[in-house]
Amino acid sequence: MADPQTVKTDARRHHDPEVRGFASDNYAGAHPEVLAALAVANGGHQVAYGEDAYTEHLQRVMHSHFGPTAEAFPVFNGTGSNVTALQALTDRWGAVICAETAHINVDEGGAPERMGGLKLLTVPTPDGKLTPELIDRQAYGWDDEHRAMPQVVSITQNTELGTVYTVEEIRAIVDHAHGHGMKVHLDGARIANAAASLDVPMRAFTNAVGVDVLSFGGTKNGMLFGEAVVVLNPDAVSHMKHLRKLSMQLASKMRFVSVQLEALLARDLWLRNARHSNAMAQRLAEGVRGIDGVEILHPVQANAVFARLAHDVSERLQKRFRFYFWDEAAGDVRWMCSFDTTEEDVDAFVQALKEEMAK
Amino acid sequence: MADPQTVKTDARRHHDPEVRGFASDNYAGAHPEVLAALAVANGGHQVAYGEDAYTEHLQRVMHSHFGPTAEAFPVFNGTGSNVTALQALTDRWGAVICAETAHINVDEGGAPERMGGLKLLTVPTPDGKLTPELIDRQAYGWDDEHRAMPQVVSITQNTELGTVYTVEEIRAIVDHAHGHGMKVHLDGARIANAAASLDVPMRAFTNAVGVDVLSFGGTKNGMLFGEAVVVLNPDAVSHMKHLRKLSMQLASKMRFVSVQLEALLARDLWLRNARHSNAMAQRLAEGVRGIDGVEILHPVQANAVFARLAHDVSERLQKRFRFYFWDEAAGDVRWMCSFDTTEEDVDAFVQALKEEMAK
Amino acid sequence: MADPQTVKTDARRHHDPEVRGFASDNYAGAHPEVLAALAVANGGHQVAYGEDAYTEHLQRVMHSHFGPTAEAFPVFNGTGSNVTALQALTDRWGAVICAETAHINVDEGGAPERMGGLKLLTVPTPDGKLTPELIDRQAYGWDDEHRAMPQVVSITQNTELGTVYTVEEIRAIVDHAHGHGMKVHLDGARIANAAASLDVPMRAFTNAVGVDVLSFGGTKNGMLFGEAVVVLNPDAVSHMKHLRKLSMQLASKMRFVSVQLEALLARDLWLRNARHSNAMAQRLAEGVRGIDGVEILHPVQANAVFARLAHDVSERLQKRFRFYFWDEAAGDVRWMCSFDTTEEDVDAFVQALKEEMAK
Amino acid sequence: MADPQTVKTDARRHHDPEVRGFASDNYAGAHPEVLAALAVANGGHQVAYGEDAYTEHLQRVMHSHFGPTAEAFPVFNGTGSNVTALQALTDRWGAVICAETAHINVDEGGAPERMGGLKLLTVPTPDGKLTPELIDRQAYGWDDEHRAMPQVVSITQNTELGTVYTVEEIRAIVDHAHGHGMKVHLDGARIANAAASLDVPMRAFTNAVGVDVLSFGGTKNGMLFGEAVVVLNPDAVSHMKHLRKLSMQLASKMRFVSVQLEALLARDLWLRNARHSNAMAQRLAEGVRGIDGVEILHPVQANAVFARLAHDVSERLQKRFRFYFWDEAAGDVRWMCSFDTTEEDVDAFVQALKEEMAK
Repeated sequence: MADPQTVKTDARRHHDPEVRGFASDNYAGAHPEVLAALAVANGGHQVAYGEDAYTEHLQRVMHSHFGPTAEAFPVFNGTGSNVTALQALTDRWGAVICAETAHINVDEGGAPERMGGLKLLTVPTPDGKLTPELIDRQAYGWDDEHRAMPQVVSITQNTELGTVYTVEEIRAIVDHAHGHGMKVHLDGARIANAAASLDVPMRAFTNAVGVDVLSFGGTKNGMLFGEAVVVLNPDAVSHMKHLRKLSMQLASKMRFVSVQLEALLARDLWLRNARHSNAMAQRLAEGVRGIDGVEILHPVQANAVFARLAHDVSERLQKRFRFYFWDEAAGDVRWMCSFDTTEEDVDAFVQALKEEMAK
Repeated sequence: MADPQTVKTDARRHHDPEVRGFASDNYAGAHPEVLAALAVANGGHQVAYGEDAYTEHLQRVMHSHFGPTAEAFPVFNGTGSNVTALQALTDRWGAVICAETAHINVDEGGAPERMGGLKLLTVPTPDGKLTPELIDRQAYGWDDEHRAMPQVVSITQNTELGTVYTVEEIRAIVDHAHGHGMKVHLDGARIANAAASLDVPMRAFTNAVGVDVLSFGGTKNGMLFGEAVVVLNPDAVSHMKHLRKLSMQLASKMRFVSVQLEALLARDLWLRNARHSNAMAQRLAEGVRGIDGVEILHPVQANAVFARLAHDVSERLQKRFRFYFWDEAAGDVRWMCSFDTTEEDVDAFVQALKEEMAK
Repeated sequence: MADPQTVKTDARRHHDPEVRGFASDNYAGAHPEVLAALAVANGGHQVAYGEDAYTEHLQRVMHSHFGPTAEAFPVFNGTGSNVTALQALTDRWGAVICAETAHINVDEGGAPERMGGLKLLTVPTPDGKLTPELIDRQAYGWDDEHRAMPQVVSITQNTELGTVYTVEEIRAIVDHAHGHGMKVHLDGARIANAAASLDVPMRAFTNAVGVDVLSFGGTKNGMLFGEAVVVLNPDAVSHMKHLRKLSMQLASKMRFVSVQLEALLARDLWLRNARHSNAMAQRLAEGVRGIDGVEILHPVQANAVFARLAHDVSERLQKRFRFYFWDEAAGDVRWMCSFDTTEEDVDAFVQALKEEMAK
Repeated sequence: MADPQTVKTDARRHHDPEVRGFASDNYAGAHPEVLAALAVANGGHQVAYGEDAYTEHLQRVMHSHFGPTAEAFPVFNGTGSNVTALQALTDRWGAVICAETAHINVDEGGAPERMGGLKLLTVPTPDGKLTPELIDRQAYGWDDEHRAMPQVVSITQNTELGTVYTVEEIRAIVDHAHGHGMKVHLDGARIANAAASLDVPMRAFTNAVGVDVLSFGGTKNGMLFGEAVVVLNPDAVSHMKHLRKLSMQLASKMRFVSVQLEALLARDLWLRNARHSNAMAQRLAEGVRGIDGVEILHPVQANAVFARLAHDVSERLQKRFRFYFWDEAAGDVRWMCSFDTTEEDVDAFVQALKEEMAK
């Protein structure tokens, strides 16, 4: 095989690799160690569609994190992961209880409903976190054919609002759900950030407390693309391979998804990346906390800072650093840190914010 | 950014990069030039979900192949590309006419029906190719509400049987379909092989003859993953971005799909790869043609050789080189060449075949 | 044809036709005039699937109520009517804004999501009624592919809580929706009760104010079964016949749906029935209003009375008259009157309630 | 309650009840005994959605035909019955093997695919009848995630071509299907005609040979509307009530479906109707068999006659009696008899055919 280090490509660079912002952790590229892993898996022929050596090895890597019963099904993206997992956990008549702010409810273009035929039973929450009490607002009517049957509780860890469930909070949710005969799905698009924040292994708030199926997020933690549906409770699902295929999430050259996951998970890259982006969010929060006119909205527990400030300040600041309004009418913004956010990036941003506040 | 050439990764090699077979062009890995392109696009922040500089540039690259009205929507895989494209071309009451052997009918796990809600109206063909006459077996009943309305003809170029439509054959299909108010979708999972076989630009049998939407295949031609829905007739569709998203085919870090497509298409890598794999199939066909007891089943026009031979011979041969039975009862097999198939691979395979035939 | 008056049937009576309760207007049977209409349409052959003389005549009857552009598509039931209508008004990427209490959200077993692939964007309301301001909580993000696109506002008249929109309230909703490029669907499962309550023709709060498509309810107003999707704005939809068929709502012997609708609508049976059931609800509300410990919860504007009272009283009362808890935890109940509810029924119920309150 | 015999209705007669043709058994109206049954069930309040006394009694009636484990779920129409039944018998990844001519494949507007998400695996047949050998053309690949998994064989008895499976033929199909772990669905839109033709009880070719779920057809046998999903093997399905509801097939005033089924099935009306329509088809076949230039196409085993004759003759004949071309290009027509077809109708038709042939 040609040496990739000397290979010329017809693709040209079209962007400035030194420019970073605070818009999203998927604005970042791939971590160099992940990119390097692709070359490791390249060359020669490997059975397509998941019977390759990398996907086989991935199972062992996943076992080291989630125990020997875990089985990983690599997929392309988070929406695909969630919709595949939720189909696996529901009958045709099943419904999914989730927070009103859940990604599956607000950010997936209706894919759960259209592709999965899933009814979402949503609950408003103050901070993106469900509780047994909040779940009970939708957990009823199992015998009532007029009501889509609540069969799954889906939580996001960390949440879309940058908050992190404690181990005990998830345990209480799982116990409550299981007590009602419902399964629990955990959308772990940023599971690494949650584990880093709690300073516990990922299994502590998944397997160890009874979560049935996990959407393991890789993209936001430094992969080029790729997630995995990780089945923690094998009794909760069946025919995952068929479901992944019909959900259009089956990669032919799957080795290239699996080897990225291996690069993240074989040792501690996943945790280094997560700790770093969390730390950058803390630095950012600390930097702005003293600024008059800037209010931090939620506890900063992972890699996101939600803040409220004057709309015109945000608009001026957006010309210097890319980030999103979260609730434009309220003046709420989201500042997201990534594995490649630097201390200099954060400090420059805080300085710029101060300058714009002063105008 | 770290220099990828010196980066260490925790992922380890689990396979022998010198082993290749004839099972499928997606058993191959990535072409080194494609792999190299990933590093070009890495580093820094780029807007997610397709508003990056690479996806923008990709449009210009696509224009050079398919003319100025073409618009490319990168997606993850072929099933996703086809189902997104076909949804775009149909109303809720629409159906798709295709060959019985079409990938959408036999190899996509029912995704067109389940995810797209699409009825496929299939037609048996001798060689995987539709004709106006064959289409007419299903092209009727537009006013009959009891019948799913034929709104699209979907053809595969080259076909799943390794045959290639001539430009005139596609023109006749398109004219016929358009004459009935139907649109035409071309599943181009191996479009590069078809163009190489016909020795014409890809546009000659797509835009130039009126094909409305193309599924452009990249994975089988040397990408790690990634295809694109290419809209050739903008009047035929709308809201492709919404459809791609709800079909779970929207990549967040899309630059890594787009830059691979650029690596293939910016100059001639797509064609070099296709010509090579086609040539290897020709070499293989020539090598086996003289062997008594081996029958070549279809014209070898692209990178696949279909053959019929004694079942036990195939079984012994499979222990030496991986390939698939196509129709096990009939003793039919498929031998597929790839961009990385070598002349030595072919010659060794032919030699092995001869040895097994002699036993 | 045999004279139906002398025909013997093998079916036997299994119920007491003198027992009535306050559970639902679909606990009632058919109005005798509707039943008699079936015999009118019987005998001889009529083209199936809607090309019969009764369905043709129905169009003229509907024109007399909804003007010359209205077109009625008889269907089987309310869920079928709503899901067919909403599919007609949405693209594959469209979503429907409705009240959290809407029948399509809480009482249709997830059929809109599963059968129609529809995302519902729900809004909490105090009384089951949307307003432009409430709609705006979900009316945004039309260009955002991550969000199911709001394309329809669906309101229920009268609402599931027994409240009735004024003509001006619906006009304001329609103008607001149309101003955003959204269509308006009106779930008229009890449209006759609303018209009777407002004392205006049905068109006054549908066509006259711009509602695009109506689910016309017949079952709750005295039919054996049967509703109709009534297209008021022909430009808003297409291929309704195909949609009805694929939504499993196409009756083969459609004359028997159409003639029931004719029996209701040809003269004033629809209005007599509605006025009567509304009057019974008023009588009931007046009867209980003075009772200490019984609180009427919503304005009684149609044929339903919602009340709050001690849970044990309700339970005892349910042993004498059938009715439902609406919110069992809160002690809320629903008492529904029907076309066949008598003054004696109401008075006996009020008396029974007083007796149980006194225990 | 008002006496229905003296009730005036605002609906008027719009058709000639003495005109009958040979187009379809659903061009006929309702059998007078069925119509009379509606009045029996009317009056008073009955629990909606299937908890009424008529639906309860229907179970006993069904037990007398199909044994004590049978459970009937009344629905609106045949498409609804089939799609509900097939969903019950399949997982999300399941597919249904059926004849190419099956009603579910060609006459349901794509409802199985769109509403049920079902892939149909079709097989060409000479006479509308599957066999174990024909089933095997699609019965493979259960472990292959690229293929929708064959989980059900669906047969139609009698078939859409007027042919009737023998008891042994169905037994062989069921044994074969069960041997492969597949379930069997029987589309019995005209099951009564099949039983009459075979002169056996309906259970002889359903329960007795292991059919799992039956779509019991009432409409074509004299009901106004209404069919029933009859579960014969309770272990094969679950949550039928939820499935019926979400499939939009749940009648609120279900007593009016159930009492019609009772009228048919309590004694022998179902059989009288079927024997009569079968006999009329025999009479018709005998009448035309001697006519030069008319070819009977399939064995006339139920109430349909398929014939081939000169196209212009058919066109002239259609001006006198309504019937359909089956394959217009080939000159094939279908003549269908109904419970209300008279000997005079048949004789007049044969005479007219002779006259037109002579022109």
